[in-house]
Amino acid sequence: MSLLVVGSVAFDAIESPYGKVDRIIGGAATYFAVAASFFTHVNLVGIVGDDFSEEDEAIFRGRKIDTLGLERTAGKCFFWAGKYSQHLNERETLVTELNVFADFNPKLPEKFRQSSHVFLANIAPGLQTGVLKQVTRRPKLVALDTMNYWIERTPADLRETLKHVDVLMINDSETRQLSNEHNLLLAARHIFKLGPQTLVVKRGEHGAMMVDKRGVFCVPAFPLEEPHDPTGAGDSFAGGFMGYLAGCRSSSDAALRRAMVYGSVLGSFAVEEFGPERLRKLKRSEINARARHFLKLTQFKL
Amino acid sequence: MSLLVVGSVAFDAIESPYGKVDRIIGGAATYFAVAASFFTHVNLVGIVGDDFSEEDEAIFRGRKIDTLGLERTAGKCFFWAGKYSQHLNERETLVTELNVFADFNPKLPEKFRQSSHVFLANIAPGLQTGVLKQVTRRPKLVALDTMNYWIERTPADLRETLKHVDVLMINDSETRQLSNEHNLLLAARHIFKLGPQTLVVKRGEHGAMMVDKRGVFCVPAFPLEEPHDPTGAGDSFAGGFMGYLAGCRSSSDAALRRAMVYGSVLGSFAVEEFGPERLRKLKRSEINARARHFLKLTQFKL
Repeated sequence: MSLLVVGSVAFDAIESPYGKVDRIIGGAATYFAVAASFFTHVNLVGIVGDDFSEEDEAIFRGRKIDTLGLERTAGKCFFWAGKYSQHLNERETLVTELNVFADFNPKLPEKFRQSSHVFLANIAPGLQTGVLKQVTRRPKLVALDTMNYWIERTPADLRETLKHVDVLMINDSETRQLSNEHNLLLAARHIFKLGPQTLVVKRGEHGAMMVDKRGVFCVPAFPLEEPHDPTGAGDSFAGGFMGYLAGCRSSSDAALRRAMVYGSVLGSFAVEEFGPERLRKLKRSEINARARHFLKLTQFKL
Repeated sequence: MSLLVVGSVAFDAIESPYGKVDRIIGGAATYFAVAASFFTHVNLVGIVGDDFSEEDEAIFRGRKIDTLGLERTAGKCFFWAGKYSQHLNERETLVTELNVFADFNPKLPEKFRQSSHVFLANIAPGLQTGVLKQVTRRPKLVALDTMNYWIERTPADLRETLKHVDVLMINDSETRQLSNEHNLLLAARHIFKLGPQTLVVKRGEHGAMMVDKRGVFCVPAFPLEEPHDPTGAGDSFAGGFMGYLAGCRSSSDAALRRAMVYGSVLGSFAVEEFGPERLRKLKRSEINARARHFLKLTQFKL
């Protein structure tokens, strides 16, 4: 089994009440790949500029991440600068420079075309469809993230892409915007008609909810006393979720529930330090311990 | 075991996108007592005016609710009128008439003074302390609800009352206001110093969280496609929680977790129809079925 991810590799400048960094590696595909690599082999497709050094690329080395699909081109990496509010529940985007990402046209290396699992991180729906066309065998599972920008600007493209997606992983406001339903169960029912048969709603400090035809599964966010930086939490969640599913070779209800938990585990670690710093130091034993902690957090007997 | 509740018995006028009622029985003690009576014997202390008819009182009859402590006096019942926003997540208070409730000075009938469990619904902290002074034996468990009004207006009285409370059951904004901490774990640590050793945070559509020195337990809100009226959900939660604990004669961690689930079950039924209508029709078998549904909603195996 192998897991393909296509998305941004970037530099971020982040300010939160806990500190400030001027340049730290970021991007959806980065967080996703590092998180997923604890569970499975990851095929990374993205684009970086010539400001992306050997030292920067070290984040992917020594992990089960194949960077053959990381295209290098003249110019600068995607750059995002943002500032979080006092309680980290709001963020202001200060700078978005697409740079080399503006011309990103994902090309899958031959050996990536048979990936069993695919995660389409938040990029233009047209590009996401283009990725799926390059996959030669129908993957066992395709998951997709998107955002308000694409929901508003390219709704027809997004609808076309969604037809080929199994799991839609978005946050609550995106869920409501896409479905035009406030109630998340009604929203899920609407989304099932668009293609995805599983909806995973990321709710930040309120955890995550999975809805499919079998029912609903909820997992809380891991309670932390001092989260430092929410950047990348959603992508780390997606990485834990998809990484676990690719690694365990199952899409049973039990496996999907565990994937929700491992997603939450990776998301909770991601926010503990700035950028992907905590994920870089993370050990598999810590993941297992926190997953057991999620049992304590949620389990009861009648 | 018996469970004492002291609080309001009222009439409400409620408007939500699902309809409108001009006069329906309400009040914290009403919702609490009806919810708790599925599990244990309830001793009700409250005050009503002469507009509270035999027919109104029927809500308590045929249940394990002793209304000996329901004082009747000349005047009108507490009256509240409110209107909910489109998605029920905000409400506007249109009218609050304290009426006979303005002079409420709870007096416990002799036979209520040995109640093993006590729930002090949201009334003036001075009155809550007065209730505890009338209890002749230290109850096994005292729980308390309060609101922003008392946190702001009578902080010294509230601090005095809290010294004698085991379980504080409030919503997230009240938790933050009382502790002056945004983070709920830090808030809990602050509250433990004030007296209560267990904090139950009611989070509406995001469920509920219990924090004690042993750790954290989270339960989601039951996903409903069409909640009609959130009035009384928190008090019904409290009734399910305390009713279960009084009925099972245990305060073990396992019992507290189950209490959180039964609280959520009762809260979820309460919002299905206007006022306490759904609770009035509720059967114990439906409670048990929904509790099992909560298992499906949350349980996973690693």
